[in-house]
Amino acid sequence: MFLWLRHEILLQGLLERLASGEVIIGDGGFVFALEKRGYVKAGPWTPEATVEYPEAVRQLHREFLRAGSTVLQTFTFYASDDKLQNRGNYVEQKISGQKVNEAACDIAREVANEGDALVAGGVSQTPSYLSCKSETDVKAIFRKQLDVFIKKNVDFMLAEYFEHVEEAEWAVHVLKESGKPVGATLCIGPEGDLAGVSAGDCAVRLVKAGAELVGVNCHFDPTTCLKTIKLMKEGLEAAHLKAYLIAQPLAYHTPDCNKQGFIDLPEFPFALEPRILTRWEMHKYARAAYDLGIRYIGGCCGFEPYHIRAIAEELAAERGFLPVASEKHDAWGSGLAMHTKPWVRARAQQAYWEKLVPASGRPYSASLSKPDSWGVTRGDKDLIQQKEITTENQLKEMFEKQKIVSGM
Amino acid sequence: MFLWLRHEILLQGLLERLASGEVIIGDGGFVFALEKRGYVKAGPWTPEATVEYPEAVRQLHREFLRAGSTVLQTFTFYASDDKLQNRGNYVEQKISGQKVNEAACDIAREVANEGDALVAGGVSQTPSYLSCKSETDVKAIFRKQLDVFIKKNVDFMLAEYFEHVEEAEWAVHVLKESGKPVGATLCIGPEGDLAGVSAGDCAVRLVKAGAELVGVNCHFDPTTCLKTIKLMKEGLEAAHLKAYLIAQPLAYHTPDCNKQGFIDLPEFPFALEPRILTRWEMHKYARAAYDLGIRYIGGCCGFEPYHIRAIAEELAAERGFLPVASEKHDAWGSGLAMHTKPWVRARAQQAYWEKLVPASGRPYSASLSKPDSWGVTRGDKDLIQQKEITTENQLKEMFEKQKIVSGM
Amino acid sequence: MFLWLRHEILLQGLLERLASGEVIIGDGGFVFALEKRGYVKAGPWTPEATVEYPEAVRQLHREFLRAGSTVLQTFTFYASDDKLQNRGNYVEQKISGQKVNEAACDIAREVANEGDALVAGGVSQTPSYLSCKSETDVKAIFRKQLDVFIKKNVDFMLAEYFEHVEEAEWAVHVLKESGKPVGATLCIGPEGDLAGVSAGDCAVRLVKAGAELVGVNCHFDPTTCLKTIKLMKEGLEAAHLKAYLIAQPLAYHTPDCNKQGFIDLPEFPFALEPRILTRWEMHKYARAAYDLGIRYIGGCCGFEPYHIRAIAEELAAERGFLPVASEKHDAWGSGLAMHTKPWVRARAQQAYWEKLVPASGRPYSASLSKPDSWGVTRGDKDLIQQKEITTENQLKEMFEKQKIVSGM
Amino acid sequence: MFLWLRHEILLQGLLERLASGEVIIGDGGFVFALEKRGYVKAGPWTPEATVEYPEAVRQLHREFLRAGSTVLQTFTFYASDDKLQNRGNYVEQKISGQKVNEAACDIAREVANEGDALVAGGVSQTPSYLSCKSETDVKAIFRKQLDVFIKKNVDFMLAEYFEHVEEAEWAVHVLKESGKPVGATLCIGPEGDLAGVSAGDCAVRLVKAGAELVGVNCHFDPTTCLKTIKLMKEGLEAAHLKAYLIAQPLAYHTPDCNKQGFIDLPEFPFALEPRILTRWEMHKYARAAYDLGIRYIGGCCGFEPYHIRAIAEELAAERGFLPVASEKHDAWGSGLAMHTKPWVRARAQQAYWEKLVPASGRPYSASLSKPDSWGVTRGDKDLIQQKEITTENQLKEMFEKQKIVSGM
Repeated sequence: MFLWLRHEILLQGLLERLASGEVIIGDGGFVFALEKRGYVKAGPWTPEATVEYPEAVRQLHREFLRAGSTVLQTFTFYASDDKLQNRGNYVEQKISGQKVNEAACDIAREVANEGDALVAGGVSQTPSYLSCKSETDVKAIFRKQLDVFIKKNVDFMLAEYFEHVEEAEWAVHVLKESGKPVGATLCIGPEGDLAGVSAGDCAVRLVKAGAELVGVNCHFDPTTCLKTIKLMKEGLEAAHLKAYLIAQPLAYHTPDCNKQGFIDLPEFPFALEPRILTRWEMHKYARAAYDLGIRYIGGCCGFEPYHIRAIAEELAAERGFLPVASEKHDAWGSGLAMHTKPWVRARAQQAYWEKLVPASGRPYSASLSKPDSWGVTRGDKDLIQQKEITTENQLKEMFEKQKIVSGM
Repeated sequence: MFLWLRHEILLQGLLERLASGEVIIGDGGFVFALEKRGYVKAGPWTPEATVEYPEAVRQLHREFLRAGSTVLQTFTFYASDDKLQNRGNYVEQKISGQKVNEAACDIAREVANEGDALVAGGVSQTPSYLSCKSETDVKAIFRKQLDVFIKKNVDFMLAEYFEHVEEAEWAVHVLKESGKPVGATLCIGPEGDLAGVSAGDCAVRLVKAGAELVGVNCHFDPTTCLKTIKLMKEGLEAAHLKAYLIAQPLAYHTPDCNKQGFIDLPEFPFALEPRILTRWEMHKYARAAYDLGIRYIGGCCGFEPYHIRAIAEELAAERGFLPVASEKHDAWGSGLAMHTKPWVRARAQQAYWEKLVPASGRPYSASLSKPDSWGVTRGDKDLIQQKEITTENQLKEMFEKQKIVSGM
Repeated sequence: MFLWLRHEILLQGLLERLASGEVIIGDGGFVFALEKRGYVKAGPWTPEATVEYPEAVRQLHREFLRAGSTVLQTFTFYASDDKLQNRGNYVEQKISGQKVNEAACDIAREVANEGDALVAGGVSQTPSYLSCKSETDVKAIFRKQLDVFIKKNVDFMLAEYFEHVEEAEWAVHVLKESGKPVGATLCIGPEGDLAGVSAGDCAVRLVKAGAELVGVNCHFDPTTCLKTIKLMKEGLEAAHLKAYLIAQPLAYHTPDCNKQGFIDLPEFPFALEPRILTRWEMHKYARAAYDLGIRYIGGCCGFEPYHIRAIAEELAAERGFLPVASEKHDAWGSGLAMHTKPWVRARAQQAYWEKLVPASGRPYSASLSKPDSWGVTRGDKDLIQQKEITTENQLKEMFEKQKIVSGM
Repeated sequence: MFLWLRHEILLQGLLERLASGEVIIGDGGFVFALEKRGYVKAGPWTPEATVEYPEAVRQLHREFLRAGSTVLQTFTFYASDDKLQNRGNYVEQKISGQKVNEAACDIAREVANEGDALVAGGVSQTPSYLSCKSETDVKAIFRKQLDVFIKKNVDFMLAEYFEHVEEAEWAVHVLKESGKPVGATLCIGPEGDLAGVSAGDCAVRLVKAGAELVGVNCHFDPTTCLKTIKLMKEGLEAAHLKAYLIAQPLAYHTPDCNKQGFIDLPEFPFALEPRILTRWEMHKYARAAYDLGIRYIGGCCGFEPYHIRAIAEELAAERGFLPVASEKHDAWGSGLAMHTKPWVRARAQQAYWEKLVPASGRPYSASLSKPDSWGVTRGDKDLIQQKEITTENQLKEMFEKQKIVSGM
């Protein structure tokens, strides 16, 4: 029914594709996937693997490409100079931010050329902003990354993972200097950004700053992210503004989160497994996102290649083709018709997987957690950037505070 | 405290290492990991990716090596000729079983040489046995794989994933012809094999057949597998037999399984996510396995590189070194001391992760499932090998039976 | 520390008691408790047991009195003439509404005289209102009950369990004719009444109609009810109005309810057991209600005598005495010091029970349900009063609609 | 279809009724029900309410009679002299054991005469046995209660709630002196009694001691109790012995219990609410018990009158009549056809309630608990009877031990 590859589509730019009605599929979460593969350290979450282990980064890009990603984001998350030298992480000294960013661009482009994917250069929030540095200082940091993106000629720019719309506006201002299309996504929920700006107002401010695409990424599950984007869409409509919408949520269920998202969950980042979405839950997400009018649909932390493939399979009819990796995945589990056991062959049908509510397998687990709520925001001393590693005394202080806050 | 690499250990054989007291760490599950990455099809679960996508197989081997695996198993699961041409899977015609097995050996050896790992050539249960073919026929199938293993000079042999001890004995007989050490693991639970042979008797029969290592792999979670291995150990002691013990369980919680393991769970294979073990649960598994006297500790389906790393980290003191991938993972989450948010830094401690019981994040999910119990065993017509793909009519029959058995 | 009985308090009226700062404790749920005891039929939920089985009604009143109730409500819930002859329930023909109401008053007064409790005459929402009868008609129905309350000289009036504030206003108008104090509680959640009036506006309208006490009862758990009452309180403050606040929530956890409360939960009314609050959860409710400024604290469906006792024990310091039934209940489980088993004696402490999160004991149950949402409101044909019992055809129609709405 | 009352059955003795094929229905749990109503103290759990509050005891008997109980047990649980003066409980001094037992007999007979029920005089395990007193001493204690039962002419005797079969044998020996039928039930699970005697052997020993009925009561949920009784039945068959079988399980789900039953669960006794069985779960229990050949089917702690009614309704066809209380309960929820809301009327059908798996309503609760396992058995100093109340120091010691055992 579908073509496996779409030779007929010439490599067009992002805005042309969106304008023509194409559904753009993003990629998944690099830091979480590569942490599990052994190439990224949880805590700093910085992407020096682009220099240290390029084959691992390349392989992950390739898996997302095969899974259906139209866009490959450079693995430049948290690759700003101030983040690369924060709290005992000495990447900037050992490798340099410039090299990390350059390698990221080279790898992404190399793999993008294996298909007809676009390369997006990405920047994200900075410790400098949290430490209350000036607009000039923060913009200078973004500009260093942008210089690389321009030199390497990425296809468009993405400012993502911002908790404060103000910092995202600054990022958009800088990225616009490139003359390329710019998207901007905040990691906020329906309550708005951490400074109290509503989701609708955030969208309006980002579009006014120059973003052609706006939306949310990370911090919340698909259901919550779509709620937030709906508020953004309504905000834009009320302001008579137009923009394409992007969704790149977590692949973790987070019904119990508060304003700051999954960072606050007790399970973050090392015990989130039971919350991972199945591929069938991704089908529902993809459909709901499409129905809401979102045309750039991807994922963030927790999204593995098979999650992206599920999005591409759900929207295969709309897009006119299946992803390459579907050669290894018949629709809705129908490949199980080849299974040895007859009761597993009986699961080779959409009706089975669509209705299944999976058991947790964890009878000693509750279904919801009470998130941490330290009430710490921009300007708090505990958020100030610190080049040196956290000291024993600082840690003890944290441990004590944890006991008090959690009431243990 | 620990050395990152163990330059001092000369490359010795498996039995020498075990005799010297070394704890051997196995690798994780290839078919499930590569299915998620887009290179293996669920249903047939066959490993033709060794020929089609060698770089993807190589990368996964490398990740396990970095995570601490002392053994790399050739990706030859279900690579017997009869399985490669079962129910519409035409690998044997397109590529040939010999090429799949040869490529698997080459890739495993290539990566093993990047560290000091051993290569194990693996065979698993066959459709022929389930179809009641003769001992001679079944052995001929194993011998075809063995020919490749001998030619490629793998370090030892592993017969794994057998539901019937009789077929595993046949496999051991064949593999012994190589003169190399032979290990054998069944995918059984504490109730014994599918023909009703007790776990203790299974172990005795496998050792008598010539296996130097015995144990279990797949089908059940670590807790259940260790229960089964304890029964095997007691069986061997009662029979005054000696053998090394192997554990390679699932990385999925399966408290609700019956005799046939996770295959019967309604969530198999596409909705097992909430059951995935965390790395901290792997620490507990590694410690319990070690305390039970098991000295070959690895994993099967669901085990990702970070799960293997957790085993290697738990046993770092006993083994005298940490795995390479621990450069990206400070013990017990202590890398979180570098996190931006103070309440996450407060989680940089063993006490936090050791006690945490993760929420499922799934308030509409139960914690246990009722497994399918079709009561179908060897010889049943629905288990007979069939070269052609399952027909529409056969599928309808299965769907009807499912409705009746599950009472829906 | 506390006096067991409070001989010093003279029998004063409700408003005098409240004005003096006394915390009034309501009683619990009669229809649910007597249904389980075998004296009330679920479905019609009418109180003809006052005539048929007065000793059973008397006993339940007495248990609540002993547990600490300051108020005994006449068991006249759904004792309006139109409800007593609805859908095949022929109480009105067999006994007459007047007799049911009179017997209720007599029994409540008899037991109230055993302590120093007040008697409240209660009316609740009518099928006539749902059937769009006129204000005059609906008021006439309330007036018939009021005539009995006046004749029997109850101490004050309570209009409770109204889903529409308009009908509650009409009830207050009628009850005010008595010259006695009047309280009014709606069975609404934070979203407001079923006609879309906000909780704050509901409170304002009820006070303007003449109610001296306002609040909520039934339909939601304590947590949700307190949220609603907080909104009511804020509404009154904004309108510069004053009233005492009443809370009489369910004793069932209902985190998954929508606007219409527990009626919509699939478990209503015969499978609510796992949702029943423990006594310790009642301690938390009582404290939270008190802290919010509520001074009339009781319960509705699901509240058994021991739940009311828990409220009275939590507020014993504030009130200066314990309830009589505490002779059989030492504070915070300390009576367990008399238990035979030492590990149960170890539970004789507040710290143990305060922290315990009880397991459900139901591994095949989810924690939340999806409520029915038929979207049927006042005026819908399915809500029209019908004297005759529901016909087979009508039932079939309902069953069909259920299948469609629930997607089964 | 069924007669409401069974005027045709003449008042016959227990054995005659059983011999004629009648299904005897027991009553429910008095100590737990009356604790919630305010008349029994948790901890000592003694029945002095027979003297103090006879109307409350009478009312509960009456509710069980109406619900379908063929037998009313005297409320003499833990009414042995040594238990009445244990650990600060001074009932023996204030009232005397004899009066408590006499009043219990009088009340039970009075209510039994309102129907055609039998009265069973009951004894249960003693602190003296746990304190290693002699057979003579322990038997003397039972004999004091028996003297009352003989004087009051109860219809038969029941030795129930014994953790050690030896003590139960002693009780049977004594009760046999009456010449009346004797039943005996242990509070054990499938693992056997606390001294390690298997369930099958327990049954054999009780029948050999003279019991005409044997089975289990309390400590475990219906599913577990039926497993145990099945083992007892098989033990009797193997020994070529005959006896009637009794089941009187908890009305609490206890899938997570170990050998000592629900006493060990952290929720015992004040947080068991989420584990309470629904009436529909009782239907399943009654059917399974009947199918196993049990002909005396009742309940223990947690059983309220509506649970007993569910048993009587499930077995109405076999017994030929419905219980009196079914006048207020149409089969399988069909009374909901009279409900105001149409979506609740749609629940007036067996198919709905039979399939419903109720949500817990508790997203912060796990489904299973880890039971206390102190390993304390008969003869341990902490189990020795002690007339005086537990001292502060003794309690502190317990609290400390709890911390150690639970690892907190």
